[in-house]
Amino acid sequence: MEGEAMVDWSAGAAYIDGRFMPLAEARIPITEWGYRRSDVTYDVTGVFFGAFFRLDDHIARFRRSMDRMRMQPGESDAEIREVLMELVRRTGLREAYVAMDCLRSRPPRGMPMLPVNARAYLVCFAVPWVWLFSEEQQARGVHAMIAKTPRIPAASVDPTVKNFHWGDLTAALFEAQDAGFDTAVLLDGAGNVTEGPGYNVFAVIDGTVVSPPEGALEGITRQSVFELCEGLQIPCEVRPLSADELEEADEIFFSTTAGGVMPVSRLGGRILGNDRPGPISANLRETFWERRRQGWHATPVDYPSTT
Amino acid sequence: MEGEAMVDWSAGAAYIDGRFMPLAEARIPITEWGYRRSDVTYDVTGVFFGAFFRLDDHIARFRRSMDRMRMQPGESDAEIREVLMELVRRTGLREAYVAMDCLRSRPPRGMPMLPVNARAYLVCFAVPWVWLFSEEQQARGVHAMIAKTPRIPAASVDPTVKNFHWGDLTAALFEAQDAGFDTAVLLDGAGNVTEGPGYNVFAVIDGTVVSPPEGALEGITRQSVFELCEGLQIPCEVRPLSADELEEADEIFFSTTAGGVMPVSRLGGRILGNDRPGPISANLRETFWERRRQGWHATPVDYPSTT
Repeated sequence: MEGEAMVDWSAGAAYIDGRFMPLAEARIPITEWGYRRSDVTYDVTGVFFGAFFRLDDHIARFRRSMDRMRMQPGESDAEIREVLMELVRRTGLREAYVAMDCLRSRPPRGMPMLPVNARAYLVCFAVPWVWLFSEEQQARGVHAMIAKTPRIPAASVDPTVKNFHWGDLTAALFEAQDAGFDTAVLLDGAGNVTEGPGYNVFAVIDGTVVSPPEGALEGITRQSVFELCEGLQIPCEVRPLSADELEEADEIFFSTTAGGVMPVSRLGGRILGNDRPGPISANLRETFWERRRQGWHATPVDYPSTT
Repeated sequence: MEGEAMVDWSAGAAYIDGRFMPLAEARIPITEWGYRRSDVTYDVTGVFFGAFFRLDDHIARFRRSMDRMRMQPGESDAEIREVLMELVRRTGLREAYVAMDCLRSRPPRGMPMLPVNARAYLVCFAVPWVWLFSEEQQARGVHAMIAKTPRIPAASVDPTVKNFHWGDLTAALFEAQDAGFDTAVLLDGAGNVTEGPGYNVFAVIDGTVVSPPEGALEGITRQSVFELCEGLQIPCEVRPLSADELEEADEIFFSTTAGGVMPVSRLGGRILGNDRPGPISANLRETFWERRRQGWHATPVDYPSTT
């Protein structure tokens, strides 16, 4: 413990396969399948106002993802919870981005090159909070477009198992950059909206909040938006959302752990409202953060005493 | 240099962003997009009989992949060539698997979360040769099936840019394991053959070698097979190959850097020939290794003198 007193944890803390370390030391071998085959699932939760948001929901989703990937790390859900708590405690951060990965290593030499022969283990870390879109972008509204690159179909890679298969999302980000937008929303093969790089998509159509049902992550922040709508008596529908409907929507907003509710003010050539976040989007964004401040779905971090 | 004399390089040598190190030390940060977004392209070449196979072809393909991914590492093609050569020299291996990756790090803190803001750098390594299928499997013929999981479409992730988006391939390997096969071939949405986990697919139909044209990596070993066929006066066709045709084929074989030509003796319930590699497949396999032994497309490694 004496040695640890000298370590600076404020830039981030990590846990790899049973061991805690400062983020700067947290690395994975270049030969492992978690990297070389993107054979990994993950989840992300956030700490704001000194408390986790929906911590147990994220761990439960992470466990479902690991089960579907046939990964059994040594840690129980309760132990993962304690690891995440300890990571944030070490950093002392009141606002943190907290990730949990489970990845496969690789088969021992001489074993058949099959995933069943590769051990899975946990990598977790807490770092200072990162906004997916800056506060300035959120205030003016995100500028988005519809990407030409289609989303990887659910039949090939299950999007409800959170994964790092971002090739299509990265291609969409390059499309957006080339055209002068902040980001790009991806469609499926049928021309329906799926998701964007790191967020779920919502349209407000005739006063109803609409979000697509499949081909997208079952977002926990998205679920929180539905709960907020219920409280605010805003009707919600989960149903296929076509590109045309998105382009004609009264309002558009995104949701993600790394940003909450993020209004959109432009979609391609179209300027929504007065080139500002629409009223329902802005209301949901404000309500989201107000509820968070009040301790909604919060698990306070038991920070070490500073005295 | 004195310190280096004590290092054991025989288990593998690596090069990360300008620095050589033993494989055991070769790790990448857990926060980088090369891992967290699989924002990486790569290539693999092999050393056998003390010589690289088609070294410049692999580097040229790697450069094309990096260009399409908009990645510009500091090293020129000639420098990459020298890095790979130096890696094998350090290990002293006469038979080695040699990989070159280019991956994006992540944007510096405070910069927009876009790939253009993330620096790309090289990770290369040489390790003792690994067979994708064991020599026993190759001798008896690989047992394959057709996977239910469809290959990620080319429109979403370009398969001609070698990538680590293996979620569909990993799912196919689990299908194969559950059904008692060594591996599984993936189809596209139209029911045509694409590729398998780590290899290109060929069928022999009425004496002609058939391989699908798209939805698959432009394999360099595949190209070598076409050259062998020309020399052996075996007709070749690059054209769509349906699942039905594969199931009815006279012979099937695979090709990959990590294995050369690999005959198949079973496909699902069907036993090909006498449950052994077919004559054309076996001939191509033998000819492939015989030509390799003779120095075909070879770049000898200039190993350090052992005296």
